[in-house]
Amino acid sequence: MRSTSELLSRRIQAAQGQLECDLLLKDVVFLDAFCCEWRHGEIAILDGVIVGIEPGLKAKREIRCANKWLTPGFIDAHVHLESSLLLPTHFQSTVLAKGTTSAICDPHELANVKGVAGIQYFLDSAAQMEMDLWVMLSSCVPATHLETNGGGTLTAHDLKSLASHPRALGLAEMMNVPGVLNRDSDTMNKLLNFHGRPIDGHCPLVKGQSLSAYAASGISSCHESSHLEEAREKLTKGISVWIREGSVAKDLNELAPLLTLATSTSMGFCTDDRNPLDIAREGHIDHLIRQAIVRGVRPEVAYRTASWSVARHYGLTSGFRRYGAIAPGYQADLVLLGDAIQCAVEGVWKAGIDVREISPRLKIPSDLENSVLASTPEASDLEGPSGRVHVIQVLEGKIITGRKVSAHDEAGTMRLSVLERHGKKTRPANGYVQGFGSLQGAIASSVGHDSHNLIVVGHSTEEMKIALACLIESGGGFCVVQNRKVISHLPLPLGGLMSIESSASLTTKLAELKSASREIGCTLHEPFLQLAFLSLPVIPSLKLTDQGLVDVDQFKIIDVRA
Amino acid sequence: MRSTSELLSRRIQAAQGQLECDLLLKDVVFLDAFCCEWRHGEIAILDGVIVGIEPGLKAKREIRCANKWLTPGFIDAHVHLESSLLLPTHFQSTVLAKGTTSAICDPHELANVKGVAGIQYFLDSAAQMEMDLWVMLSSCVPATHLETNGGGTLTAHDLKSLASHPRALGLAEMMNVPGVLNRDSDTMNKLLNFHGRPIDGHCPLVKGQSLSAYAASGISSCHESSHLEEAREKLTKGISVWIREGSVAKDLNELAPLLTLATSTSMGFCTDDRNPLDIAREGHIDHLIRQAIVRGVRPEVAYRTASWSVARHYGLTSGFRRYGAIAPGYQADLVLLGDAIQCAVEGVWKAGIDVREISPRLKIPSDLENSVLASTPEASDLEGPSGRVHVIQVLEGKIITGRKVSAHDEAGTMRLSVLERHGKKTRPANGYVQGFGSLQGAIASSVGHDSHNLIVVGHSTEEMKIALACLIESGGGFCVVQNRKVISHLPLPLGGLMSIESSASLTTKLAELKSASREIGCTLHEPFLQLAFLSLPVIPSLKLTDQGLVDVDQFKIIDVRA
Repeated sequence: MRSTSELLSRRIQAAQGQLECDLLLKDVVFLDAFCCEWRHGEIAILDGVIVGIEPGLKAKREIRCANKWLTPGFIDAHVHLESSLLLPTHFQSTVLAKGTTSAICDPHELANVKGVAGIQYFLDSAAQMEMDLWVMLSSCVPATHLETNGGGTLTAHDLKSLASHPRALGLAEMMNVPGVLNRDSDTMNKLLNFHGRPIDGHCPLVKGQSLSAYAASGISSCHESSHLEEAREKLTKGISVWIREGSVAKDLNELAPLLTLATSTSMGFCTDDRNPLDIAREGHIDHLIRQAIVRGVRPEVAYRTASWSVARHYGLTSGFRRYGAIAPGYQADLVLLGDAIQCAVEGVWKAGIDVREISPRLKIPSDLENSVLASTPEASDLEGPSGRVHVIQVLEGKIITGRKVSAHDEAGTMRLSVLERHGKKTRPANGYVQGFGSLQGAIASSVGHDSHNLIVVGHSTEEMKIALACLIESGGGFCVVQNRKVISHLPLPLGGLMSIESSASLTTKLAELKSASREIGCTLHEPFLQLAFLSLPVIPSLKLTDQGLVDVDQFKIIDVRA
Repeated sequence: MRSTSELLSRRIQAAQGQLECDLLLKDVVFLDAFCCEWRHGEIAILDGVIVGIEPGLKAKREIRCANKWLTPGFIDAHVHLESSLLLPTHFQSTVLAKGTTSAICDPHELANVKGVAGIQYFLDSAAQMEMDLWVMLSSCVPATHLETNGGGTLTAHDLKSLASHPRALGLAEMMNVPGVLNRDSDTMNKLLNFHGRPIDGHCPLVKGQSLSAYAASGISSCHESSHLEEAREKLTKGISVWIREGSVAKDLNELAPLLTLATSTSMGFCTDDRNPLDIAREGHIDHLIRQAIVRGVRPEVAYRTASWSVARHYGLTSGFRRYGAIAPGYQADLVLLGDAIQCAVEGVWKAGIDVREISPRLKIPSDLENSVLASTPEASDLEGPSGRVHVIQVLEGKIITGRKVSAHDEAGTMRLSVLERHGKKTRPANGYVQGFGSLQGAIASSVGHDSHNLIVVGHSTEEMKIALACLIESGGGFCVVQNRKVISHLPLPLGGLMSIESSASLTTKLAELKSASREIGCTLHEPFLQLAFLSLPVIPSLKLTDQGLVDVDQFKIIDVRA
């Protein structure tokens, strides 16, 4: 292991041709992120760092790149790794191949299940990974008092104890907008503890004086803009806008017109919650770049936004390791494209290493398994009230829900139950939902934002019980029940959130689960993702947690009976 | 004095209209630095910080600004305050009125005269000033081994001891390019000590592999670009480019075409060395903005560059105090313009205070006076060799010199002497110079970059001696001698570099000195500034220090005899 001093010395020598480099990418058109232009050159790499961009240096290995384009590695500005269902090591293999060489993650899901240990798991993983993973410390665990989590309450004090870890970057998405606006003491302490470090926001639809107050508190980014004018106001108020294209929430089409040369250094791309099927089929940040270009964003603007802009926001463009640009002294995180318009990734280097040559080293800690501590309820426990009831309306592809009042047994109305699974042994909360179609069976998940209790939707309480029993036995996962039998099942043993399977195997199983859902009559494109957001009481308008039916607009539990 | 916690709380309340603001600028068109656009709004300020940008808030004081433009306060990206000849307190009064609300200074001159105490003087001053002054720690004291300074050698260790001061921002201009390229041990230690903090560069004409090596070392800005392609290469290699318009070195005309929307976040404006006459007559950063706009730079790009871009580079856009933008949570450093194209400054607020209401508090420490420790030489000591000699050729308005070989008494050739003044009591170094005109008298200065020995130019050794005697007696300054009499004299008691006079009084005296210079036949527009750079051995091509004639290209002392 070379010392920093020796590494610095070697860079300076290699840049002047006094040391042979490790790798030379010859005859390539590369992105000059600073001028936002393409240039022709030759990229020389030593010790994982770029030392030259013009011809003239020699290297052990040379690759000719004529007619190809080279960009800095992509950076996911905000991601919950848990939503990929992949272990960090498998996440890495999957996204590195697609050009994402760094990610700013928020371990909000595992933190809700396991508390400080959940965050520590990602900090420890980050320290062992080849891709650069930075951890924003989850600011809102639990997300609300209207649900029961396993991780307890993470206080300003808890977060401060994690802040000195070299992979801890700042404070993660501050979802507690009322806490900021009303100056709750623990929220204020979190903000004060992280002043001078990046503080991510989460303020969907917040505007005007509330947005000014939120910005004045020191929060400097937000990935929750679904309207163009909403995002524009955030930019004007000094809040960088990350365009999100998750598996459910998709904002790129709406926000792409805001992304110009002028705004590009205050914008970024993020996936937030993106499932492994979408990553495999559509891509990761490369997908966002492609979609942005299709919508008229200049390619060089899109690539700058995907790399340097985010690195700069998070303070990663200074220091001994610099990220996000192709220039001397910057880490050699590089993406080779056969076509820049199509974002056709042909090669990826992480710190100068061809990512195909990276064998991950990461181990899974066993103490995050067996996190589902609930007992299977009786079918009768899953029975909701009858008569006129409040019904949640799922909207295809949206995490915001509609709501209506109707008879509990109106056509297309399904039962929905949430069962606390962190050991409190309480009875399930039962309600009603429309939008899944007329299910002949049940669908259940241990991924249920943000507290990740067990959530199940179905026609009969008996089949819902069978689905829950399956998840409880396997330590969490996804399953589909038909004719009182589990016809498809994916275990998620790590915290009830993540699989130990590889991306390829997982993708196959997820396709089976989707197919099984369709077979029982589900009409949603992403039944498990949409189910997972039905218990998230920070997104309007009607949600069901283990504590009951939440009217998000009033931010309180209401009776299911109308 | 309110606590940070209380201030944060008050901001959040005021933004929501729950507290009355201090000041409201109504009906104004302001710069949105993030989107690089002008917007109409209403700027509300509390506790020196912006809390709102839209109408709806109330304040104790309201100012209507119809048909006026508001921009963030200007930031000088690199300045040697000593070159203004003004005490920090007088510098502040002068430039605040012109819209410069912050400056990144390098106390290189006083550090050469007084060492650590010279830097400490500016750190202490910064802590007492109303304008925001940040200090980059002088990296190259002495600038070379080819001159004798009073401050001794500032080592990596010395600088590290100053680095924890809240006003110390990073490492100042790394002029020792060979030290970086050859990896001198103390230079490497300086770079390593400041990794992760801003490290300013100083690399005129450096390009290709040398520039790559320099960039790879972690240096991230440079204000020494005099050619467009030179500056472009620096940008591409990750080195932010500060456009300089000093009193002698003027790069704006050449570099303005590089300043576009694309490059604007990696560029800034600086004055480096600007004398009080030019500040008074032409302006400070406002002058650069005007000139940039005249040369075709879009006004919003020019104003963004003058503020947010520099703040961002130096890490001043995060934390409890944010600088460089008009947005909630940013310090209310504001410039009101009657005309944005003309940069016609009509009002300036520093942290929400009208700068006309600021009364400076700063005191002068006496231990920086009496720094001229030389004894007056005999006239015969100032006699240079005769015959064919190397002659320095001063070029009007440039700090680079030409050179020629000619007879020592060729028409227009003047005597030039440099006398060590830091107490070593050595004999003066004598040479020859052309370009001042045919002087009938002598001109002398205790400002002589970078070691600030006494420098004198003249026709007769007797008059040169009288000029030196005048400076020695007054503790430093500028003077003009004619017919064996001092006809104009400005004392600079603080380190032999700075006056205690106000800007207005100083301006009058400088005008008298210029007039006196012209009277004795000097044809240069800025005789004292050009004289001061004749002893600077880091700028090509022929210079005279107290140790002798320096061939800068060979970087060694040569014989005056050709």
